[in-house]
Amino acid sequence: MTNSHKNIERIIERLELLYECGLQEDGTHTRMAFSQEDQKGRALFETWCEEAGLTVRQDAAGNVIARLEGRQADSPAIIMGSHLDTVPDGGKFDGVLGCVSGLEVCQTLSESGRRCEHPLEVIVFSDEEGFRFSAGMVGSSAFVGEAQNMQADDLDITGARREDVYHNAGIDFHKMAEAKRSPETVHCCLELHVEQGGNLDQMGLPVGIVSSIAGVKRMQISVAGEANHAGSTRMDQRHDALVAAAKFIAQLPERVKTLGDQYTVGTVGMIHVEPSAVNVIPGACQFSLEIRDQEAKLMERLATALREDLDQICREAGVSYNWQEQLSHAPMPMHEGLKQLIKEQAEASSIPYTVLPSGAFHDSLLLAEHFPTAMIFVASVAGKSHCKEEYSRPEDLGLGFDLLLETVLAADQIKFFD
Amino acid sequence: MTNSHKNIERIIERLELLYECGLQEDGTHTRMAFSQEDQKGRALFETWCEEAGLTVRQDAAGNVIARLEGRQADSPAIIMGSHLDTVPDGGKFDGVLGCVSGLEVCQTLSESGRRCEHPLEVIVFSDEEGFRFSAGMVGSSAFVGEAQNMQADDLDITGARREDVYHNAGIDFHKMAEAKRSPETVHCCLELHVEQGGNLDQMGLPVGIVSSIAGVKRMQISVAGEANHAGSTRMDQRHDALVAAAKFIAQLPERVKTLGDQYTVGTVGMIHVEPSAVNVIPGACQFSLEIRDQEAKLMERLATALREDLDQICREAGVSYNWQEQLSHAPMPMHEGLKQLIKEQAEASSIPYTVLPSGAFHDSLLLAEHFPTAMIFVASVAGKSHCKEEYSRPEDLGLGFDLLLETVLAADQIKFFD
Repeated sequence: MTNSHKNIERIIERLELLYECGLQEDGTHTRMAFSQEDQKGRALFETWCEEAGLTVRQDAAGNVIARLEGRQADSPAIIMGSHLDTVPDGGKFDGVLGCVSGLEVCQTLSESGRRCEHPLEVIVFSDEEGFRFSAGMVGSSAFVGEAQNMQADDLDITGARREDVYHNAGIDFHKMAEAKRSPETVHCCLELHVEQGGNLDQMGLPVGIVSSIAGVKRMQISVAGEANHAGSTRMDQRHDALVAAAKFIAQLPERVKTLGDQYTVGTVGMIHVEPSAVNVIPGACQFSLEIRDQEAKLMERLATALREDLDQICREAGVSYNWQEQLSHAPMPMHEGLKQLIKEQAEASSIPYTVLPSGAFHDSLLLAEHFPTAMIFVASVAGKSHCKEEYSRPEDLGLGFDLLLETVLAADQIKFFD
Repeated sequence: MTNSHKNIERIIERLELLYECGLQEDGTHTRMAFSQEDQKGRALFETWCEEAGLTVRQDAAGNVIARLEGRQADSPAIIMGSHLDTVPDGGKFDGVLGCVSGLEVCQTLSESGRRCEHPLEVIVFSDEEGFRFSAGMVGSSAFVGEAQNMQADDLDITGARREDVYHNAGIDFHKMAEAKRSPETVHCCLELHVEQGGNLDQMGLPVGIVSSIAGVKRMQISVAGEANHAGSTRMDQRHDALVAAAKFIAQLPERVKTLGDQYTVGTVGMIHVEPSAVNVIPGACQFSLEIRDQEAKLMERLATALREDLDQICREAGVSYNWQEQLSHAPMPMHEGLKQLIKEQAEASSIPYTVLPSGAFHDSLLLAEHFPTAMIFVASVAGKSHCKEEYSRPEDLGLGFDLLLETVLAADQIKFFD
């Protein structure tokens, strides 16, 4: 029933238009959560939804909820949710594909005069990426009623207060709990997303069905040494915070490989030193540490071992440290019934696929704890993501969209998922 | 002839007042070169100079030149020069002591009705620290007619253009060469400075006579890897720019100890990653590298070896790098005749001293290439410098000042230094 060619064209055109909303003065493209660029992209997306006949509202956590009523007005909704915010100079597909494809499903049905039994909802969850305040999935956390460790006075990477940033985006920080969605109003959740790894691309497959989403732990680590003059302080008199941090970071990849399995990853993505001058020994160094794995026990063991590594390095260097866990999510399997349903649609439509875990986390990680949830991956060329080289082929996007649409139609026929 | 107690009080009061000029909103104290805080400090210093009867002018490089005429109006000047700008959250003594003590020498002579044969000049050299544009001794370079590798479009750490920053400080970037001082107008240069290392403090000595100033090389290093998703990119598929940089930084101290001697130092004081997000593998990493030594050959050998280290690390990590030398000064011995003169004054005044090299560089490093130049060090407690804990004892400051004054008086009797 689909008109894939037209669908692909419209999806790609919208991915491009949203990408342009993030254009920065320096030529990079970023839609940081709650920024002007993010707001611009969301406003554009809302316009498309309204033009396609969906009703649009923003909930108390800033999630955009676009809804197309079903034949049975009060039945629980089929949710297609993802996010529109990006990492710094991120790509065109991450998150955006899920929102744009969800809308495309609704618009395709509308345009062909079809209507599902269940209402369809396309949700843009707010601040999924989380680099602004160093913890993401803000919108989906509130949506499932999980309180995050957030304070009104938290400062973002620009030094702005959380409460003020939210206020400017039309969110009352103190009322975000009102965004909680009751489970009986949700039939199931489906998220179409680019893989962001190179597995499907290496296997030559257009799509994948996600078996489970990796757990994640994020730590903020501070090392405190002693700032001193870089010319007159002899090497054996130093307590260099950066050298201690560097020893930890330098050995991290080998430690992750030794202590983890093929899916275990560990990354330091941010680092700052103080006072940050060419001629001053760094007296302080802050860095982020993120580890992810498909197995909860392994992730816990790795975190403990890495902390012991840091402890030993700092003791030997005569510096102190602070290890603060900012985020911890256990690995989450996707819903068995939904995975089976997607498989059946792929086989019926002769779409080649495999089943694989997700190393990246997604709003679906939280949704899956509360609602029947599954994810479909589209191949990422060369596995590049969170960068401007992020790319998926049009034909793979089309097959991903087809599979999402068929799954929505099939799920619409299911009485309920258990 | 000195009235040390009064001198010490006034010196310390002025150190405190200048320190307060650097107070930042976050409670730290910084007088970044050419900043409002730096301008405020210089204006205050100029007021004191004028009150003490010195004439004050600013030369084409922004150096403040305060002059007290001698009996012989056209004879070459005895220069007491240092700087007032500081590193981020720097201390009260570095640089400032040389300026304030120079003024104190002039004021003490004026107040006691004495006058030297030679004119006395107290010079505040501009941007000695160099963290703003990653290369310092800007004012003293122009003063000795050494062109630095500077461009009007260079950006400072805040993103401001060099030409604009200079313009706001009353300096025409294109006319800085006019600051060049002809050697026949200079009798000698003396710089009183805190040691910034812990040698004098460990030996229990109040002052030191500098034998030579360490040479310095500053490099700006960029490592280019591949930004990618921190969750979905397996460890063996990564080209992490920060991990490569960390391997270099982690082994730097051992390499410096192995390849250098007791005076050799190597420091990474600044580091930045891009895109700088908790969930993105760093695609790029920039860091500063500074090495210093008393021996030119050793310094060259170390630079070569470190570059080979980086080359090997980057090859193994599958990343590329750029190594750019931004500054290179050979080690510089102080003037023999002047050192001898200082020794004689110390012995005549029973001031305990030793002769030692300077690991830190100073405006005197450049002055010494063109004029008879020497430095006197005052002990730094625990060797702390370039930080707010920087401290020298009042009694040591007093002995340092006495030695400077006696040396000025003795140098005034010398016909010329060769």
